[in-house]
Amino acid sequence: MKVLVANLGSTSFKYRLLDMTDESCLARGAVDRIGEPVSQCSVTIGDWSDSQQQSVPDHGVAVEACLQQLTDPEHGCLSSPSDVSAIGFKAVHGGRISGVHVVDDDVLSAMSEMNSAAPAHNPPYIAAMRTLAEKVSDIPLVAAFETGFHLSIPEARRTYAIPSEWTEALNIQKWGFHGASHRYIATRMSEILGRSDARVISCHLGGSSSLCAIENGQSVATTMGMTPQTGLPQNNRVGDFDPFALPLIMQHTGQSLEQVLQRLANECGLLGLSGRSADIRDIEVAAAEGDARCQRALDVYVAEIRRHLGGMLVALGGADAICFTAGIGENGATIREAVCAGLGDLGIELDAARNADPSTNELGEATVHGEASRTQVWIVPTNEELIVARQCCQLLQANE
Amino acid sequence: MKVLVANLGSTSFKYRLLDMTDESCLARGAVDRIGEPVSQCSVTIGDWSDSQQQSVPDHGVAVEACLQQLTDPEHGCLSSPSDVSAIGFKAVHGGRISGVHVVDDDVLSAMSEMNSAAPAHNPPYIAAMRTLAEKVSDIPLVAAFETGFHLSIPEARRTYAIPSEWTEALNIQKWGFHGASHRYIATRMSEILGRSDARVISCHLGGSSSLCAIENGQSVATTMGMTPQTGLPQNNRVGDFDPFALPLIMQHTGQSLEQVLQRLANECGLLGLSGRSADIRDIEVAAAEGDARCQRALDVYVAEIRRHLGGMLVALGGADAICFTAGIGENGATIREAVCAGLGDLGIELDAARNADPSTNELGEATVHGEASRTQVWIVPTNEELIVARQCCQLLQANE
Repeated sequence: MKVLVANLGSTSFKYRLLDMTDESCLARGAVDRIGEPVSQCSVTIGDWSDSQQQSVPDHGVAVEACLQQLTDPEHGCLSSPSDVSAIGFKAVHGGRISGVHVVDDDVLSAMSEMNSAAPAHNPPYIAAMRTLAEKVSDIPLVAAFETGFHLSIPEARRTYAIPSEWTEALNIQKWGFHGASHRYIATRMSEILGRSDARVISCHLGGSSSLCAIENGQSVATTMGMTPQTGLPQNNRVGDFDPFALPLIMQHTGQSLEQVLQRLANECGLLGLSGRSADIRDIEVAAAEGDARCQRALDVYVAEIRRHLGGMLVALGGADAICFTAGIGENGATIREAVCAGLGDLGIELDAARNADPSTNELGEATVHGEASRTQVWIVPTNEELIVARQCCQLLQANE
Repeated sequence: MKVLVANLGSTSFKYRLLDMTDESCLARGAVDRIGEPVSQCSVTIGDWSDSQQQSVPDHGVAVEACLQQLTDPEHGCLSSPSDVSAIGFKAVHGGRISGVHVVDDDVLSAMSEMNSAAPAHNPPYIAAMRTLAEKVSDIPLVAAFETGFHLSIPEARRTYAIPSEWTEALNIQKWGFHGASHRYIATRMSEILGRSDARVISCHLGGSSSLCAIENGQSVATTMGMTPQTGLPQNNRVGDFDPFALPLIMQHTGQSLEQVLQRLANECGLLGLSGRSADIRDIEVAAAEGDARCQRALDVYVAEIRRHLGGMLVALGGADAICFTAGIGENGATIREAVCAGLGDLGIELDAARNADPSTNELGEATVHGEASRTQVWIVPTNEELIVARQCCQLLQANE
């Protein structure tokens, strides 16, 4: 079974094509500037790469263009577009619908009910899915919701202190996100440690960031709540914030609630703190050059990771392993060091040299803890596409 | 110097009168049902108690009635009202004004700027202070802000991931509250442990609750943020909540932002979760009788305390002592047990028997940790009035 796993932006389409007989990656590609006069369609299949310019008015045409490259008679890895058993999506917020589902009207409608909760994620996914459902109608679309991995979180850790009517009728609870990534880390750490009952804290630190406490391979706590705007400061989203500050901001700016929420979802997080960039690499450079706001952005980011790391540690009663993943988690040696600083009494000790220059295996994995550390500290590159492809397979096989 | 420390409700006035030469409590009293046709004015001075009914239209008359009882020729402890050097208040939120101040127009105006941030606290205090300033004009009024103790929190732990304009112009930051209580615990634990550099986590669990991480006698982290509605679930206030859930609630209820915020500040927390009571004693009884919502309320409360306890542990790099205080902290053996459960790997172990039946000293203090616990666990009754009285003294002496 071959599954194309899509990563949608509002004007971009990236994908990987996986052969699930051996979970190998057959191809990867991308289409950018969708809707503009000229788009770049690029693909890599083994050693062969191709890049073509063409007009791509919508996500349907983007997928058609990709399928054409994948079925290239000379270099392609598919004999026909119908070799693709499913297109899988890391869907973000379905509210009342979580888990893995073939995309249909009810799934799309559940997602659109959550548009105000996930303004940066749901609307472009819904639009692209609708286009694909119409234009690439012979390949099933599968939504693997990011909230799915967190359905195992105990009720006490996913319930807000609100009337139960709001929890039940409005699905206002701590859903959690980054489920594909944390699920991969749970599975992979269980393989690495050779035991399925380890207490693992997965630190997905990247464009957006969340932590997840994993026990017996299941999520038992996570940092994002009702919406992906909560938890740690994100690239341009605010993270945890006090709703009772909203009237002050509305009064000061003269803006409506909707406008202020839009700013909290687009102009805050690392971007708002630094006043300069949503990319931590830019912020680190500027901080090193003496920019005080950028230094503060880094300090707040680390302080919030540490605050939430503590919550995960107590949820698990201590950790057998902490695992850093995603862009910042895998590459940010300084951030990792700051996150783990001074935690020896709690059993967590980095090895400074290993952390600065990790000795990775072929999967990019490495340990960075010191000899005396009771908690192992790992760098493990995540593989969200593999998880989505596996979930697609399981769903299609179950539906057969 | 004698200081009357006031505890204001919108229709009540409670107080203690302290003699600061030896920090003894000379008297305590209360006036209830202010504004109703008949109020009860009660006082206890040593072994003598008195209770009188009279009409008390406002807080000014309440203080006059108290002063009359305190100067009773036979049983009183004051020869004249002018023996009172100051009336001290545990003021909640002054935004741009924190610390300790003689109440004047600027203080009152700073407080009223924060009315939407502290809707349950600031308006009744402002109203009562205005009345007292007019009617008891010969005794200075001193506001000791609850935010004051937290001014030592490092910037990274008090900054939201918002544009710095909002932080600076609107004073939107993690202020923290319960400052008088956490300051008392800091001072007292330093005396108890015989060292000023201990890492202490103060758990003020009561009608409202917050945790505070204390290092070298100073607050370095706390759980309440911009407003007293954040952090742990409170008696009827929501605690941490996601602003991006507001549009869903507004749409569902047809209510305005202001109305929904009012419900978050009055109908949530333990009251909203339990659907029954804001008082944890009622909730514990109902849960024991099988009420599932009440059991969930207790579980959420404990889960949130544990989540935040972890944040404090990491902020301090481990704790030398955890200290439970306030109504629930001092009396809630079951809550203390649940908060500390399964934390042996992190160095925290309760002694079940001691916790269930603490052997207290004359101040009501007791240890409840096990022999092997690296972290000491204490019950210490707080004394917010003493802190406010000390702060009043220091201010008046500095102003002399």
